[in-house]
Amino acid sequence: MEQVTIRDIARKCKVGVSTVSRAMNNHPDINPETKEMILKVIAESNYVPNNSARNLKRSNAKAIAILVKGMDNMFFNNMISVIEEVVRKKKYSCIIERVEEKANEVDSAIEIVKEKRLRGIIFLGGNFTHPHEKMAQIPVPYVISTIGAVSDGGKPCASVSVDDYRESYKMVDYLCGLGHRRIAIITACEDDISIGRLRLNAYRQALLDHGIPYDPDLVFHMTKDDTYSFATGYKVTKEILEKKTEFSALYATADTLAIGACRALKEAGLTVPDDISVAGFDGIDAGEYYIPSITTIRQPVEQLAAETAKMLFSLISGKEEPCSKVYDGELVVRESTKSRIAQQ
Amino acid sequence: MEQVTIRDIARKCKVGVSTVSRAMNNHPDINPETKEMILKVIAESNYVPNNSARNLKRSNAKAIAILVKGMDNMFFNNMISVIEEVVRKKKYSCIIERVEEKANEVDSAIEIVKEKRLRGIIFLGGNFTHPHEKMAQIPVPYVISTIGAVSDGGKPCASVSVDDYRESYKMVDYLCGLGHRRIAIITACEDDISIGRLRLNAYRQALLDHGIPYDPDLVFHMTKDDTYSFATGYKVTKEILEKKTEFSALYATADTLAIGACRALKEAGLTVPDDISVAGFDGIDAGEYYIPSITTIRQPVEQLAAETAKMLFSLISGKEEPCSKVYDGELVVRESTKSRIAQQ
Repeated sequence: MEQVTIRDIARKCKVGVSTVSRAMNNHPDINPETKEMILKVIAESNYVPNNSARNLKRSNAKAIAILVKGMDNMFFNNMISVIEEVVRKKKYSCIIERVEEKANEVDSAIEIVKEKRLRGIIFLGGNFTHPHEKMAQIPVPYVISTIGAVSDGGKPCASVSVDDYRESYKMVDYLCGLGHRRIAIITACEDDISIGRLRLNAYRQALLDHGIPYDPDLVFHMTKDDTYSFATGYKVTKEILEKKTEFSALYATADTLAIGACRALKEAGLTVPDDISVAGFDGIDAGEYYIPSITTIRQPVEQLAAETAKMLFSLISGKEEPCSKVYDGELVVRESTKSRIAQQ
Repeated sequence: MEQVTIRDIARKCKVGVSTVSRAMNNHPDINPETKEMILKVIAESNYVPNNSARNLKRSNAKAIAILVKGMDNMFFNNMISVIEEVVRKKKYSCIIERVEEKANEVDSAIEIVKEKRLRGIIFLGGNFTHPHEKMAQIPVPYVISTIGAVSDGGKPCASVSVDDYRESYKMVDYLCGLGHRRIAIITACEDDISIGRLRLNAYRQALLDHGIPYDPDLVFHMTKDDTYSFATGYKVTKEILEKKTEFSALYATADTLAIGACRALKEAGLTVPDDISVAGFDGIDAGEYYIPSITTIRQPVEQLAAETAKMLFSLISGKEEPCSKVYDGELVVRESTKSRIAQQ
């Protein structure tokens, strides 16, 4: 079929090309009736503006969405870049949609699928403790990314993540190995039953295994309104310092929190790591460039993101059944931690 | 009209509710023909999964998109949060779509409008030097955000930004006032004719006004593939240090670049600000929590974002004509800069 051009539209409407352009561009200097007439003709024609006709046809047919909960979380930015690259190579278009902190991500998914006619969904972040019936309402294949081992009525949901318990254990074990016995932790809000709970449980177990009694006075929870941000790490560390609880190391369960913590410690006249060792989790860029650079558990972002996209396309094509894939994180020792003996 | 439930679908298909659920959820343990039949019935019915029926109707009708070029730019994250809040209050839904660095943002806009039936577009970032005819092809109202004063065939496009020339002048004037005469600059790639060019021109003028000769040896351009990231600031600063050009201050035209620069200086054994003063631009959170905290020009993110959304809705309702709105930035002096006399 011959492609309709702006000139064809102009001819059909008996107006100039610039008038068609003004109508499309919502310019004020055009007779409202003329404008309405032109837009009607455009709507009835197969007119697609230059260059985009082919792309349009392609992406109209095939799109997936990434639903992100916690957009401020820098860790997700890298994930999104890599996922998008894979999606584009598959000739799918990719929509990113934020889910508000308090919103139900499954409801959002159901809504967006109907609305945008998507082929699949990737959930980034969120709290996956929805009942089986709820998950079953998502009418397209989906992958839960960065959160592991969710089950949908006995069957595993498709998920790609690290083992948050194992990785968190690695970090606390490392800090204990440096001789620290008073290790404070900044963790998710008290009723979190997702990633935050796993990281905290591992902290308890690692202490136990090193013969260090668990002291609830060293456990500092975020509130429900706190996000994984610099500001939260800063605020909670100020609160820790006010309590005057003695500690030689601080395990902040996200790099953003660790950076905020370092700033609060500096303002209190304390030097990291000479006075206090600080460790994070995630492996975001900001931690690498920080002074001091932040000791962390690096999540394999490239692998997690690539596998997330790959798994979704396998589900879409019906080639694979939903399963959980778990990747290894890596303990990256940098400047923000040192042995307790050297510290004092 | 009565809402169709999953039970209605099950009855119509003569299967159990759980079978309908499996069909929707793409579970493997279902007869392919049964699944196809169920999905066909769902497609032909008005069935909308629980809770989302009302939201769906609403958002289906009204959506806008934010097209982001340079998603790694942390400055945009805050902007997106604020814009989304306003959009949600207006009962519109909001799609975020990334534009690849090398892609044409106007083509992307035209494509996405057709595809998703949008009411309006917000451009965040990008290089707005497209010919009038090209801009005119965007069939819905749009606002160009964080980039000022673009004209569409003599008429101003709708834009919301700071005056990049004036704000950049402020920073260089401040550095000169501290007694610095050898001020290196990290700026956009050589053929940039957008924000990067404005910030560089202001640097030249401020030096001139302080009687300091312009020295091309102090001007360091990013390459075409570089983004405004920590890594770029780090890499370019390493190159500066290798050249052994003498300088006492470094003006990095984004906070991300400034943070990367501080890290490179530290690794070269130089202390900020005792040996070198470092200044940034934008006012992102990471600069506030960095050690040393980064002297910067703070862009009024809340205002820019709120006005961007407000302007778009005015254009959609036909209440306003496209115009440029310019806001003031603020020089925020922090720990990373000090007077050259005190420095030595």
